[in-house]
Amino acid sequence: MVSPAGPKRSVTVLGATGSVGGATVDLLERHSDRFEVEALVGGRDAAALAEVAVRLGARRAAIADERQGEELRRLLDGSGVAASAGPQAVVDAAAVPVDWTMAAIAGAAGLAPTVAAVRRGGVVAIATKECLVCAGTAFMAEVAEAGATLLPVDSEHNALLQALGGQGIDAVETMTLTASGGPFRTWDAARIAAARPEDALRHPTWSMGAKITIDSATLMNKGLELIEAHHIFAIAGERLDVVVHPQSAIHGLVTFRDGAVTAGLASPDMRVPIAHTLGHPERLATPAVRLDLVALGQFTFEAPDLARFPCLGLARSALLAGGAAATVLNAANEVAVALFLARRIGFMDIPRIVEATLDLAAGRLPCAAPATVEDAIELDRESRRIASERLPEAQFRAQ
Amino acid sequence: MVSPAGPKRSVTVLGATGSVGGATVDLLERHSDRFEVEALVGGRDAAALAEVAVRLGARRAAIADERQGEELRRLLDGSGVAASAGPQAVVDAAAVPVDWTMAAIAGAAGLAPTVAAVRRGGVVAIATKECLVCAGTAFMAEVAEAGATLLPVDSEHNALLQALGGQGIDAVETMTLTASGGPFRTWDAARIAAARPEDALRHPTWSMGAKITIDSATLMNKGLELIEAHHIFAIAGERLDVVVHPQSAIHGLVTFRDGAVTAGLASPDMRVPIAHTLGHPERLATPAVRLDLVALGQFTFEAPDLARFPCLGLARSALLAGGAAATVLNAANEVAVALFLARRIGFMDIPRIVEATLDLAAGRLPCAAPATVEDAIELDRESRRIASERLPEAQFRAQ
Repeated sequence: MVSPAGPKRSVTVLGATGSVGGATVDLLERHSDRFEVEALVGGRDAAALAEVAVRLGARRAAIADERQGEELRRLLDGSGVAASAGPQAVVDAAAVPVDWTMAAIAGAAGLAPTVAAVRRGGVVAIATKECLVCAGTAFMAEVAEAGATLLPVDSEHNALLQALGGQGIDAVETMTLTASGGPFRTWDAARIAAARPEDALRHPTWSMGAKITIDSATLMNKGLELIEAHHIFAIAGERLDVVVHPQSAIHGLVTFRDGAVTAGLASPDMRVPIAHTLGHPERLATPAVRLDLVALGQFTFEAPDLARFPCLGLARSALLAGGAAATVLNAANEVAVALFLARRIGFMDIPRIVEATLDLAAGRLPCAAPATVEDAIELDRESRRIASERLPEAQFRAQ
Repeated sequence: MVSPAGPKRSVTVLGATGSVGGATVDLLERHSDRFEVEALVGGRDAAALAEVAVRLGARRAAIADERQGEELRRLLDGSGVAASAGPQAVVDAAAVPVDWTMAAIAGAAGLAPTVAAVRRGGVVAIATKECLVCAGTAFMAEVAEAGATLLPVDSEHNALLQALGGQGIDAVETMTLTASGGPFRTWDAARIAAARPEDALRHPTWSMGAKITIDSATLMNKGLELIEAHHIFAIAGERLDVVVHPQSAIHGLVTFRDGAVTAGLASPDMRVPIAHTLGHPERLATPAVRLDLVALGQFTFEAPDLARFPCLGLARSALLAGGAAATVLNAANEVAVALFLARRIGFMDIPRIVEATLDLAAGRLPCAAPATVEDAIELDRESRRIASERLPEAQFRAQ
């Protein structure tokens, strides 16, 4: 455990007003004797950011939305918390040296501040997918160059990290990520093809945003997690696997070369993986509800059906192809999911657009993995353009 | 992984002709470039011992049964393997310094050679229950004094060791051992009370000897494993738990202070935990069948029923009571199981004899944990005498 007598560790939370940020703040309050808050970064909600910055006694608060800067400054006037606003202020806040950073700014906005945090070293707990899915090779090169320690917060990757137990990746035969199977797990192909956005709304275990809810329904989320795992653990794509486990109690399993398997489990409370990264390599107490095997009663397992859920197969192929494919796949999927949420395409048009974009990009865009995060952002932009071009070919739906 | 280029590690196998010994020999043959065999120790089967000693190119072979000495010497004549016989020869063989020892001599006969192996330090892979159940406190003091590394081979404890992943025990909230539930898991109390030895014969997953098969049916085996876990991991009895998991895929789970859980799993092949201890801290390849979650389909969990299986409750109480109780419990159980196997008592007389012995011992025998292995052996002997005295009170059965 972190010694109460030791010096306080300095922390920064990027995305402090989101759900992962909120869970992080909860843990920092519970362990206020062990941590001191350097910077809190929010997106648009000045009131929420100011409130938590005062509560935690942060040194500084930065808000991404420039228009909220005045409000943030007004709210923090006289509080002792320095206020700033705008994308550069966010990057500057992320670049202040600290022992531990939570990188939980969702979407492309998270890239620059997360890279800034990585560049000054220390421990970076990563909860954003974009760095690893869109710019994995370049991002991991930054991590290696800075000597930063990257600890995944996502429940699957955090479970794999815990199951790995500090052993080298050459001890590993395979890593298996579990998937809940999503809301359409038991639906037949015809019903899935007719699915509307509201059909995917209720994910069985976790409460999530609209984009990730659709990714969970297509199983693309699990495909993107395979790509993340490849980068985080430096494990070959061939050694990564997915099994459907609707109870979502086991999040990941590591099979070692001797045949032994260790698994990471937890009840669905983000404070558990966050506390693991915050206390690492020691353990912090949390009030999270403990996993109760007897109350759960049973775990079931099934193979993912790539015929009904082709996005998982596409992501796996992109992972195995390497190079630019994962960046293209992720961009095309973002375009397709937005179109589906806007009711402009059908559910099965999502994999169609992704596949068509991958095919077209192979001839028109660079094939190598983007060497820098900036190159990845450019490739992402080009891929989105190509994906949007595929729109006329998608089956339009009027609902 | 163990480097093929590094120096060979020297190993000794105590109990080389038993089932755990045989699995160990199989691994040593597969990795003969990495290990050299110092000593092989067997019980009674001179032919089997001689055969494996020659095959592995061992330096020496010792057989416990003095009467088999001549035969062993004859068989090994001219082979380059030194032969010896008798209990002292076994202890002498165990005391030769090596990097790694498999301690797999079953029953009380395993105590002296295992202690001899511990005393010269190095890694001791332990597959015998007696040292820890009968003489746990004294045995662990020997381990600590010698600076030996004790690695459990038993699937449950090995799973816990792997799930612990090198973390300190103060990071742990609870450890959970799984139990298959035994052959009478679904039987009602009346049917269990009428159970005969042959009813317990087929254990669902593992093939075992008669004593341990009955212990599996009473759930005493799981109670003894709780006591072992307490000593191996230096964890308080209150923090140890049992859950019934008939598929026996998960063998043990560790819940950390933050609520995260890691679990150890494996298919039922003893080579998996043995290879873990043999390669430790690296990993050795094994041909064991890999765990296939999809093929298994489901895991179920239920609470153990202490009303139908009072032996588990008795063992747990002995663990919590501490002192001499575990030694007395183990001795009384051995007497009772032998009587049941001889058809002299009924199945539910096993817990009755154990409980009565614990009650009587509390007034007549020392209450403190035996300070030396010799004291533990003496207490074991006294406890057996008391347990045998309870015989007239047991319900006799004539079948």
